[in-house]
Amino acid sequence: MDKDIAKQVAERVNAARLLESVDALAAFGARDDGGVNRPALGERDIEARRFLIERARALGCSVSVDACANLFFRRAGDASLAPVMSGSHIDTQPTGGKLDGCYGVLAGFEVLAALNDANIRTRRPLEIAIWTNEEGTRFSPGAMGSSAFVEPSRMTRYADVRDADGITLSAALETHRQAFPSLAKRDSKDAAHAFVELHIEQGPQLENANVPLAVVSGIQGVRWYAFHVKGTAAHAGTTPMPLRRDAMTLAISLHQEIESIARELGQADTRVTFGRWNIEPNSINTIPSSVTFTVDFRHPDPHVLAAFDEHANAIAQRHNVRIEAMFSHAPVAFDTTVLSRIQAACHALDARSLPLTSGAFHDAMYLAQHCPTGMIFVPSRDGISHNPAEATDAEHLVLGARVLAHCLTTLCND
Amino acid sequence: MDKDIAKQVAERVNAARLLESVDALAAFGARDDGGVNRPALGERDIEARRFLIERARALGCSVSVDACANLFFRRAGDASLAPVMSGSHIDTQPTGGKLDGCYGVLAGFEVLAALNDANIRTRRPLEIAIWTNEEGTRFSPGAMGSSAFVEPSRMTRYADVRDADGITLSAALETHRQAFPSLAKRDSKDAAHAFVELHIEQGPQLENANVPLAVVSGIQGVRWYAFHVKGTAAHAGTTPMPLRRDAMTLAISLHQEIESIARELGQADTRVTFGRWNIEPNSINTIPSSVTFTVDFRHPDPHVLAAFDEHANAIAQRHNVRIEAMFSHAPVAFDTTVLSRIQAACHALDARSLPLTSGAFHDAMYLAQHCPTGMIFVPSRDGISHNPAEATDAEHLVLGARVLAHCLTTLCND
Repeated sequence: MDKDIAKQVAERVNAARLLESVDALAAFGARDDGGVNRPALGERDIEARRFLIERARALGCSVSVDACANLFFRRAGDASLAPVMSGSHIDTQPTGGKLDGCYGVLAGFEVLAALNDANIRTRRPLEIAIWTNEEGTRFSPGAMGSSAFVEPSRMTRYADVRDADGITLSAALETHRQAFPSLAKRDSKDAAHAFVELHIEQGPQLENANVPLAVVSGIQGVRWYAFHVKGTAAHAGTTPMPLRRDAMTLAISLHQEIESIARELGQADTRVTFGRWNIEPNSINTIPSSVTFTVDFRHPDPHVLAAFDEHANAIAQRHNVRIEAMFSHAPVAFDTTVLSRIQAACHALDARSLPLTSGAFHDAMYLAQHCPTGMIFVPSRDGISHNPAEATDAEHLVLGARVLAHCLTTLCND
Repeated sequence: MDKDIAKQVAERVNAARLLESVDALAAFGARDDGGVNRPALGERDIEARRFLIERARALGCSVSVDACANLFFRRAGDASLAPVMSGSHIDTQPTGGKLDGCYGVLAGFEVLAALNDANIRTRRPLEIAIWTNEEGTRFSPGAMGSSAFVEPSRMTRYADVRDADGITLSAALETHRQAFPSLAKRDSKDAAHAFVELHIEQGPQLENANVPLAVVSGIQGVRWYAFHVKGTAAHAGTTPMPLRRDAMTLAISLHQEIESIARELGQADTRVTFGRWNIEPNSINTIPSSVTFTVDFRHPDPHVLAAFDEHANAIAQRHNVRIEAMFSHAPVAFDTTVLSRIQAACHALDARSLPLTSGAFHDAMYLAQHCPTGMIFVPSRDGISHNPAEATDAEHLVLGARVLAHCLTTLCND
């Protein structure tokens, strides 16, 4: 019976209404090049929030806010049951597109509307959330809202973070409070029943496989290292090859060794990037005396990440090179029950899907610490994101929203 | 008989006087760290020139100057015969040492004194030269004085070159004229009989071989190329390895290919340096979209240089990478007769020597276009040069001056 209801709701997803909402939201902070620039808690973001609060109220939702200005749009169910949650973020990169984050929020709104249109009351309440400052470009780090939601003590640390103009997060939150003085307070002390985030892939895999959906099984863990390689500067003309201590030659041999071990350890799931290089003295006719390069290694398996840590340190030690651990984040495995509901939704709607691990971070990474969580991806054209050219075919946007509608309805009736 | 005379002169080289003169000259522009900072035609250089002009006159030499402020200290011989020339430069790098250039000039002065002490009149006149602005750090390019001496038309181009303070070479030359208004004019229309330059090696080979002298057979040719490698920037987390176009990965494979072909073509004489790298966007978690790196390739054999040009261009074409030819200079082979006189001097004085090709440029590179030319190297401690730590053992400095005295005397009596 639930399955039939879920399918009904999915069928009520209105393609025109969904696509129109993408353009409507993109108007707040629209760039001349078709992109969007909407910093978290800035004037445009507050206007966009006002627009969505009004839409949510028109859909019959109650609206609440928490200490980090996360907004919650709640469609009523049995108030004694934990709600099902969905949503994403609406802040953008300075040269961002219309879809990153926004699509997940707007598809959630479309599910609210479809439930209304189908005239269905779910057992559990459904909450669509807007998480504050996911991009991390105005205030660092990213995913502030979702991480503070799951662990409110983080607010102590976040409060004094300043943006490039010296404005603290506290001050920006106060501006937000003044803009929306009457919103009810929401706290996170009661866990949700589940959280599902729908997002664009921000990579090329779905397009490359010509598959419209991914059931996202987790988020890769990441390690950032810097290798500091020392040599001896000397004259390019007078120093015979066997007498050189060329820091770049050693750095390149480390690069080859690290890349090779990274691919061997992680196989097809390995992502390894040597993105930043600093060469001294960086002169055409002087042998490099010092090279620093970074390694970004990602993998979904914590054992592979641990093995990479060991190898990276052993390589550095063997070559007498200083290694600096810059950042690390454990992989997140999403909840198998939630994933099976997403998978079932795909089946019910005859939508082909791939299992995929997310290479980028998302709010769902933190929500997974709070409640059973899963994600759905739709394709990114040419794999492009964080760019005005960010795009997804309309049919994929609609299909993603239908699958979201299906699985949220199912979860709400658990 | 000449051999006996040459040996007599070599034996008159006075170690204490030579070593004292090194310290005396180093006082002009002395740095607190023991090094020397004496930009070409600056106040300190003019003071140093005045000091040497007075010394030369005290030794009975006539002094002349040419259009590029090169100074010539002439010990008389048969005025109808072409003179033998020696010398080097006395300008330094901003953080230079006491020996680079200065040693060759001062050893020449020591030969003048030794000839006087031996009371010998040579057939040919002997001229010790100070070549202006060899380092090229005040006015670019380097070796201005020697290149203008052998090709005076270059002065038209050099005249307007400005130093970092906007002072033109013309203005600096005028300052020099005003400092020494009464010097006779010297022009280069009559070729010299020979030019011999004594210099520190500025590299580690003599020290490494534990040999005190090198008979320098020539100066390597050089090729400077830049390779401009393009890729596609993408997210380090979301882009699978097989779908990447990583500019650094391609640049490193080009580096490996170029280094391998350079070593294969040039064998032990190859010098290949990848000194300057520019990576874009140079961000830890973004796949590099663009890498430019330089190649400095040096070899004494013009055929090897030509083969390298061909291979470098073919590699660039094969990988669809833009290659930019930045600079090239043909190798210089010194005169075999002059080299045999240097070799004979080493034998006569029981001094061990190696044949060596110079990896650095010297004034002798240009003089070789003017007259039969050769060079002698003494060791550089730890191969260090262009540095306050630049040093050569006293016994090596003395031995070099003795060999110079021997071969200049022989050449003067040709």
